Amino acid sequence: MQIVEVSPRDGLQAEARTLPTETKLLLLERLADAGHTVIEATSFVSPAAVPQLADASDLLHQMVRRPGVRYPVLVPNERGLERALDAGADEIAAFVSATEGYARKNLRRSRDEAVTTAVAVTTAATAARCRVRGYISMVIADPDDGPIAPESVARISEQLLRAGCDQISLGDTTGVGTPADVRRLIAAHATAGIEVDRLAVHFHDTYGQALVNVLTALELGITTVDASTGGIGGSPFARGSAGNLATEDLVWMLDGMGISTGVDLRALGRVSAWLADALGHPPPGRVARALTMTQR
Amino acid sequence: MQIVEVSPRDGLQAEARTLPTETKLLLLERLADAGHTVIEATSFVSPAAVPQLADASDLLHQMVRRPGVRYPVLVPNERGLERALDAGADEIAAFVSATEGYARKNLRRSRDEAVTTAVAVTTAATAARCRVRGYISMVIADPDDGPIAPESVARISEQLLRAGCDQISLGDTTGVGTPADVRRLIAAHATAGIEVDRLAVHFHDTYGQALVNVLTALELGITTVDASTGGIGGSPFARGSAGNLATEDLVWMLDGMGISTGVDLRALGRVSAWLADALGHPPPGRVARALTMTQR
Repeated sequence: MQIVEVSPRDGLQAEARTLPTETKLLLLERLADAGHTVIEATSFVSPAAVPQLADASDLLHQMVRRPGVRYPVLVPNERGLERALDAGADEIAAFVSATEGYARKNLRRSRDEAVTTAVAVTTAATAARCRVRGYISMVIADPDDGPIAPESVARISEQLLRAGCDQISLGDTTGVGTPADVRRLIAAHATAGIEVDRLAVHFHDTYGQALVNVLTALELGITTVDASTGGIGGSPFARGSAGNLATEDLVWMLDGMGISTGVDLRALGRVSAWLADALGHPPPGRVARALTMTQR
Repeated sequence: MQIVEVSPRDGLQAEARTLPTETKLLLLERLADAGHTVIEATSFVSPAAVPQLADASDLLHQMVRRPGVRYPVLVPNERGLERALDAGADEIAAFVSATEGYARKNLRRSRDEAVTTAVAVTTAATAARCRVRGYISMVIADPDDGPIAPESVARISEQLLRAGCDQISLGDTTGVGTPADVRRLIAAHATAGIEVDRLAVHFHDTYGQALVNVLTALELGITTVDASTGGIGGSPFARGSAGNLATEDLVWMLDGMGISTGVDLRALGRVSAWLADALGHPPPGRVARALTMTQR
């Protein structure tokens, strides 16, 4: 099982308190210490849109890469890609929305325009020998547009894979999905000829469904799962969006099932408690809260 | 799918603020209004041990039974059974612990003595034409005793079924279990010749595993699940114990999977918000919190 740890990007971007770059550098070090091997380090979106991550270039310049650890960064467009490459990024994530509503609200363009941009970014990045991950948001339903046909998500996945993405992370941004939705979504990808090893899942715990959806995805053969230490995060642009799946809740389950991730739960719990202090609020994740309560 | 709604008993017993009997009567009415058909109404344990439920006899005398709704009550011993029968109970739940540690701490006797008591209560209750449910606590592990062999849980289930219980509710009181534990536990019951339709599951969300464990139990054929509206509850006697599985989180999943429960999610959300106000704190359940945030 490969966990993609997204707290430094998807986690922090929703937080009210802006952390100093030094704290973020510490976070990256400590996540690697806890055993993480893929850590989404930051985002090169507009600093105006996400002030928390305005220090993306500085962060990338200053961070010390741990051998064996990958540090993808989020990139919204070709200008963002240029900034990321200038800062030394060697792996990026491009992103699109499966729905028109979220594309217009979050990406400020149509859904098709967003796909065109992501395809262009992917093509340019792979030409620059960058590994590219594709994110698709709102893969189950959109608060404005309603449910989305799984086939239309699979078509976007195809486009991104064809452009050169090595993996597609399917994001249920508002956390509304259930195991039935996950089965339909992955079945639609299978029908489109997309192998499960090209897919990752990215769930939010707004309605408590994140882990049960991960289990369903695992049962269908998916082995890459996005999660955020302490469960921090959630899109600041999506109504009703709450924390990401907490990495500790995921690791608790996988440890119990004898599925190794390389992540040390106790060490991660300490990172989580420290991060919660830095952010000034208790972590939303269940394990993080339980460990914090018993440790104090 | 049959939900056993335990908020009036397992939920309230952990709450700091003691609710007036009238509020509890309203809770019972509103849970039935939301579509619940099995509601654990109260407990006849010692008022000194659980002051919140000291009004059990009054509550039972005053409550108006809704046709088609069952109202089991928890009974610790033969004296409790007498009180329950005097108050008009026609269905009870007897309880034991799977571990020595929890039996001694919570039930103040050895594990075997607790089983003997529960068997005596069950025999006497069935003789009085009461339907009896058996609860087994700590079916996965105990904070003091460590992991428990699933076979020893199955042996207790056998004893309780033989005594006349119609169903055994398997309780992971501290919420430490994962899908692997649930599979082993149910497999041990199958080996002991116990059919899945005699089993129910009772999970706590301390480590975020409750729903994923329910899904695993469903996949193995179990169709009765205990849950608590808003996720309130947790044993006041078990270290590290947090809220029960929130009924809304469960119904959200089942609704999405097309599995009917008779419970109306929106109506239950309103009960949950009202109950949270009465208790003076936000509900711990995910759906309850998300609905509360968007409704206000």
